[in-house]
Amino acid sequence: MKVNGKHYRTIWLEEGGSPCVKIIDQRFLPHQFIIEDITNFNQMVVAIKDMHLRGAGLIGVAAAYGIYLAILESAKTDSFDTNLSKLAKELAETRPTAVNLIWAIDRLMAEVAKVNSIGDKIKVAKQTAQLIADEDADSSQSIGIFGVEIIEQISKAKKGDVVNILTHCNAGWLAFADYGTATAPIYEAHKRGIKVHVWVDETRPRNQGASLTAWELLNEGVPHTLIPDNTGGHLMQHGMVDMIITGADRVTSNGDAANKIGTYLKALAAADNKIPFYIAAPSSSFDWTLTDGVKQIPIEQRHPNEVRYISGLSNRKVEEVLICPENTPVANYGFDVTPARLITGIITERGVCSATTESIRSLYPEKF
Amino acid sequence: MKVNGKHYRTIWLEEGGSPCVKIIDQRFLPHQFIIEDITNFNQMVVAIKDMHLRGAGLIGVAAAYGIYLAILESAKTDSFDTNLSKLAKELAETRPTAVNLIWAIDRLMAEVAKVNSIGDKIKVAKQTAQLIADEDADSSQSIGIFGVEIIEQISKAKKGDVVNILTHCNAGWLAFADYGTATAPIYEAHKRGIKVHVWVDETRPRNQGASLTAWELLNEGVPHTLIPDNTGGHLMQHGMVDMIITGADRVTSNGDAANKIGTYLKALAAADNKIPFYIAAPSSSFDWTLTDGVKQIPIEQRHPNEVRYISGLSNRKVEEVLICPENTPVANYGFDVTPARLITGIITERGVCSATTESIRSLYPEKF
Repeated sequence: MKVNGKHYRTIWLEEGGSPCVKIIDQRFLPHQFIIEDITNFNQMVVAIKDMHLRGAGLIGVAAAYGIYLAILESAKTDSFDTNLSKLAKELAETRPTAVNLIWAIDRLMAEVAKVNSIGDKIKVAKQTAQLIADEDADSSQSIGIFGVEIIEQISKAKKGDVVNILTHCNAGWLAFADYGTATAPIYEAHKRGIKVHVWVDETRPRNQGASLTAWELLNEGVPHTLIPDNTGGHLMQHGMVDMIITGADRVTSNGDAANKIGTYLKALAAADNKIPFYIAAPSSSFDWTLTDGVKQIPIEQRHPNEVRYISGLSNRKVEEVLICPENTPVANYGFDVTPARLITGIITERGVCSATTESIRSLYPEKF
Repeated sequence: MKVNGKHYRTIWLEEGGSPCVKIIDQRFLPHQFIIEDITNFNQMVVAIKDMHLRGAGLIGVAAAYGIYLAILESAKTDSFDTNLSKLAKELAETRPTAVNLIWAIDRLMAEVAKVNSIGDKIKVAKQTAQLIADEDADSSQSIGIFGVEIIEQISKAKKGDVVNILTHCNAGWLAFADYGTATAPIYEAHKRGIKVHVWVDETRPRNQGASLTAWELLNEGVPHTLIPDNTGGHLMQHGMVDMIITGADRVTSNGDAANKIGTYLKALAAADNKIPFYIAAPSSSFDWTLTDGVKQIPIEQRHPNEVRYISGLSNRKVEEVLICPENTPVANYGFDVTPARLITGIITERGVCSATTESIRSLYPEKF
């Protein structure tokens, strides 16, 4: 991924003096590119909870570094284990819908439990966090390689004409360590010279499409058009969308997918207009224990002010404007669940499968 | 309708000196309640085109007063007929999707053509414009009386528990001379003591739900909750919506309905969750000549800055903030078409019918 021509990852550990985790503070994008220094555990909790960073994979990597910071802090107390469990619990509660968060915390805690000395625990935690970051970037890259085949087929069927892809929210490189999931096949297609054009849902209430996906595509030079979330149905009715790819925050073992609120509506429109609808998600986003997404996935409710106020640039400053009468009652659900029956396929780091238990099992037999 | 306890219509003619049409400038709502004076034809063109006022019925009434102003101005020229035709054409082009606009212009022009002297033409134009305003308010009131029966039935089935109604955009009294269409049954239910709660779609890009519908419901004391447009599908999946009522900008003779962009997505979710979806529209919103809404209704594209910039209150001033990288390409379609197959019924001023040619014909035989 590139920002102003320079290569970045979305999160990295800077060593030397005291450890410092560097992240891109996404709250200021696309208007300001700000790198935030996270030097203690509490700063990481705030960064995840208040969405300085967000996105399935990136939350996992951030949680891993969070546990590393928690271990460094617990090492300074008299009761290492009690303190670490407390902090791990606190970290797990920052974003209840994000399965990668729990997954990364559990993995770190398990690795750390395998060694005895506190010095070894610190070392293992750091290594594991870095490994998770690398694995995340690698799996995104694999999703790109598998997903590009679908785009290639549509391109061929259209005799090389532009392939119009709609995406919702940001499952781009800003949501992972690198590459992204929904965007990885798009970037790969662009790299291979396949003509693509991306319809970018602005993704209310936090506008991650308008502020993050549009900014990423601009930096990568991929043709795109920003649309309100309301627009996709009309475009699909009129043959202006060839496929949809979104990410997922949690996928159940039967192929239901929780993703940013509004994804379900796009999947309905895709089905109504016979347009393929794909979820791009690494296996770390799967919750193997669940079998009914609508019933079983808890949907996080966020602060009403995220709906009442919209952030943007005014007179060269990032400001918030109130869009409704003050104190209007608001409901702010973060996600919805797209039932497997509306999903054409799931693009994973091991290949593309159907949204059925059988097909998912064929890619990940060891999980069943 | 009430604003701060005082009774208003959304548009009225003030006589005395030179004629002045008064309108509520909706661009400043909900933050400022501003009455605009329209004293010449061009001001009315700007008011309609730049959406100082909007909404199916209100656009019709405004167009009628626009023709009245055009006649007053043409009377001062040497070529009355040529000038009037030119202005009528200009007025007709302000909002291409709004069928009430053309309907009102045609009606005024036909009435005016029946009399000969310019003095009589002025008199007839004024009378007809006022009649259209009264008819608009009356038909909204009738829609309320017919529509409330549907709410009453759901209330009974729920044993008096709250009826949750979702609406999209503003088809409230701000969109008509008074009462509204989608809101008329809700206001009537509220008046009758039936417990209702309204989910208000914010309705991007112009946020008419957040700024207008929420403000109306607040002034009328009806319980409501503002939601992003993305939220409705999730609410419907979880049994939190009992019915949907929206307005329509144009209804075809077979029951397809063009309404604010995004309506189609809500209709799909309603169908997927077996929730009744109603269109509330007076016969003036019907285009009797059309038989296929998706193919035949032209969809207006509006300025990209309506998507790039969002208007709201900051430091007690109404400001605009930029939500995406500057100059991001944008598509801004104003409407979409909900196919008749997704519509449970159409609530008109003559009663409720199914969204089929036969059922519509049974209410309006003279139109076929």
